[in-house]
Amino acid sequence: MSKREHRKKAWSSGRDWVKKIVRPVAKAALPKGRELQPEEWRLERAPDGALSLGQVELRALFEKWGSPLHVVDGERLDENAARFMARPPAAAGSCEAYYSYKTNPVPGVLRRLHERGMGAEVVSAYELWLALRLGVPPGRIVYNGPAKSPESVIEAVRREIGLLNVNSRAELALLAATARQLGKRPRIGIRVTLPGGWSGQFGEKVQTGAAMEAFREALAMPDLDVVALHCHLGGEIASLDRLDFLLSGVLAFADELRARLGLDLEILDLGGSLACPTVGPRQRRASRVAEALGLQLPPRPPEDVLGIDAYVARIRERVEGQFTAKGRATPRVFLEPGRAATGNTQFLLCRVVRLREPEPSGLAWAVLDAGINVADAARSESHQVFAIAPRPGSSRRPYRLVGPTCTPGDVLYGACMLPELEEGDGLAIMDAGAYFVPYSTSFSYPQPGVILIERGRVEPIRRIERFEDIVRRDILPEDPGP
Amino acid sequence: MSKREHRKKAWSSGRDWVKKIVRPVAKAALPKGRELQPEEWRLERAPDGALSLGQVELRALFEKWGSPLHVVDGERLDENAARFMARPPAAAGSCEAYYSYKTNPVPGVLRRLHERGMGAEVVSAYELWLALRLGVPPGRIVYNGPAKSPESVIEAVRREIGLLNVNSRAELALLAATARQLGKRPRIGIRVTLPGGWSGQFGEKVQTGAAMEAFREALAMPDLDVVALHCHLGGEIASLDRLDFLLSGVLAFADELRARLGLDLEILDLGGSLACPTVGPRQRRASRVAEALGLQLPPRPPEDVLGIDAYVARIRERVEGQFTAKGRATPRVFLEPGRAATGNTQFLLCRVVRLREPEPSGLAWAVLDAGINVADAARSESHQVFAIAPRPGSSRRPYRLVGPTCTPGDVLYGACMLPELEEGDGLAIMDAGAYFVPYSTSFSYPQPGVILIERGRVEPIRRIERFEDIVRRDILPEDPGP
Repeated sequence: MSKREHRKKAWSSGRDWVKKIVRPVAKAALPKGRELQPEEWRLERAPDGALSLGQVELRALFEKWGSPLHVVDGERLDENAARFMARPPAAAGSCEAYYSYKTNPVPGVLRRLHERGMGAEVVSAYELWLALRLGVPPGRIVYNGPAKSPESVIEAVRREIGLLNVNSRAELALLAATARQLGKRPRIGIRVTLPGGWSGQFGEKVQTGAAMEAFREALAMPDLDVVALHCHLGGEIASLDRLDFLLSGVLAFADELRARLGLDLEILDLGGSLACPTVGPRQRRASRVAEALGLQLPPRPPEDVLGIDAYVARIRERVEGQFTAKGRATPRVFLEPGRAATGNTQFLLCRVVRLREPEPSGLAWAVLDAGINVADAARSESHQVFAIAPRPGSSRRPYRLVGPTCTPGDVLYGACMLPELEEGDGLAIMDAGAYFVPYSTSFSYPQPGVILIERGRVEPIRRIERFEDIVRRDILPEDPGP
Repeated sequence: MSKREHRKKAWSSGRDWVKKIVRPVAKAALPKGRELQPEEWRLERAPDGALSLGQVELRALFEKWGSPLHVVDGERLDENAARFMARPPAAAGSCEAYYSYKTNPVPGVLRRLHERGMGAEVVSAYELWLALRLGVPPGRIVYNGPAKSPESVIEAVRREIGLLNVNSRAELALLAATARQLGKRPRIGIRVTLPGGWSGQFGEKVQTGAAMEAFREALAMPDLDVVALHCHLGGEIASLDRLDFLLSGVLAFADELRARLGLDLEILDLGGSLACPTVGPRQRRASRVAEALGLQLPPRPPEDVLGIDAYVARIRERVEGQFTAKGRATPRVFLEPGRAATGNTQFLLCRVVRLREPEPSGLAWAVLDAGINVADAARSESHQVFAIAPRPGSSRRPYRLVGPTCTPGDVLYGACMLPELEEGDGLAIMDAGAYFVPYSTSFSYPQPGVILIERGRVEPIRRIERFEDIVRRDILPEDPGP
């Protein structure tokens, strides 16, 4: 046997060894969890396996609306919105919800949330313009963010928006000067940060005294109407513990504001960060081990994640409890939900463009028409994928799902268990209603359209991007015609 | 002293210790390098410090063209293009260059490269459409990529493009069937991969025999005209060693094709991957240590990076050498330059929107109007930054440069040494001509315009994105007017 053959044999027996011993052991060692089923998203499976939403068969959508395609579940959108604004059984009042525009800035989605009673949480001149353009009353707009341009501050003050949350002390002087010039007295809050939450470019720190100083400074400015305390934790609130951490920090600081500055807050703005129950952060190391072995990590069980109802109930309970106990009026509570409001109300349909022969390890490659260009979030979060019309009786196998762009980083799933695929087959990447649309690019491929489904009716809310759209801002030569 | 005061003191003396001992030691241990000067990019500095390109003062550009703003150096674009197609002194011929559209798909840039003699390398139906729309003769188009849609293959075959590089054996049958149906005989190459280069979804592997099998299969298909061997290494070719690795692999495989299949190649397509000399990969660990201490890593010395002239000379030398020695005709050599062609011909101007008070460590935060939404590449690569009009005599200090979007990940530079900044000041992020534009999103902010500067003349080639553009594909309510 030559040296080369020797090496080859050792290599292939290494492969066998991996297959027979390492894989089962790793499989046993990986965290357990049940598989998520289409019903989790109100999808129905026909006897032949084809998925539908509200009596609309998904595989029938490509022909008219193209691929990839965002599909919004109108009823679930309504349901989520209602939950954020519901009064919990044991509570005296309910919260006000301002949808975080940046999470899924599709006008058709935003308008529907507004029609259902949500306000707008905006973080830029563009988003402020969009909210006003969609007819949101200025009083129902909250303006946040670390980079408010002078022009956008003028617009916000001039239009008398409901609340402008100051991100840092550096903003106070600009804001006061603008107010004086316009003869207005804007309603402001100050964003504070707790140790363990986001800080960096955001807010003023409670623990260093900077937050208290910012309030003291603002209260000394007669042009500003200081009405709110704002704290957006960032990251993910997936448990009551994490929520309690936020509430304890905010309530203690509210007490301190009252004690030291005599400030009775009109508004507690608790920001967003509530998790989407069916999406989990991808555990990097465990994922890599699993993917190398052609295994898929089970998703985080959605029932372990703090839901909207429990989140709102705990907030009302603790806020009302604290203020009632002290004989003070309970402030209005603002929430700024993003991913928890729309994450699971939308999915991305896409198709298999090409299959590659399986590797010796058995892992097959499927090249999709959606990748990092439209589904970048799927690289760092675990999103459920379904075959929308699996062939009856086909067995499941691991696929590496890659996107269509010419970069090796365009890998959405290292290993995803799916029924046998063929070119042209459709897949649904679930929970695409948070950070899929705003992070989308026109990198080599146009961006998808968006449709909304409701009780058997399909409503187009954003048309597919055409080639001409991508270069609409460019100077092109005369069109020579076809 | 209370426990708290104790802790506070220990903490602040810890800070001192970091400042007095750790920083200098780390500084001494960090890799050395000279600072890059504006002249490296043909920028001129006026006595008052203000930067100009081709007699156009940069700080004067914002008023007319907005911020952020892409600025293209027309002359350098011409220069780079000419270099790729030049005949090296010792060579018998020159290479043909096909610009990688995906790298910087701005029609004004692409047209200019075409006018200077470059063809188009496209990887999607959209890019194929764009090349034809810009008047590129079909014979001057190369079509690559792992996700060629059936419709785009029909278009490519129908228009008789110069070369279609098959990505995997799975594509061959589709291509042959399309060719037969259209009564055409497309000119094709097959993409192969070398161990150590990109593989994954790309190409067929030389070392497993799959590449040879793909050629054997293709040659047996009478509907296909097999003319080329394609190998795009991926990653970065920054040294002669790396280039030699590619050339050795490709030339050896070309010999094998001749010996085993009797194939005389008309074209060797060597792909792209040549580095941009003034951009380096960011060394993750070293960067983190440096940034935590408020230090900036020196850039990779550009003179250590393989330049265009040396790259082309080595390619001609080895390809001509090999074929001449064997008494065979030298094939045409195709190059598909991307970042080396346009990376250093463009920069992104942006402004400081807000400054935050320095932290106790002395690190100040500057919030810019450009972040991951338009300059994502700056997070993983080291890009030089200049203040475009520093105040005379101001001392340099470390700034953390963050973008305007509401996410803590929007940090472009952990620590960047810059002269004292004020709000409104302009910065230039250099080498924005590769992967800045295609990875841009409209995440909370509209996308920048693009202008081209040439001998004192400013030519707009892409207008700034307007708010209305972002929602052009959406159904909006009637405009209520201002």
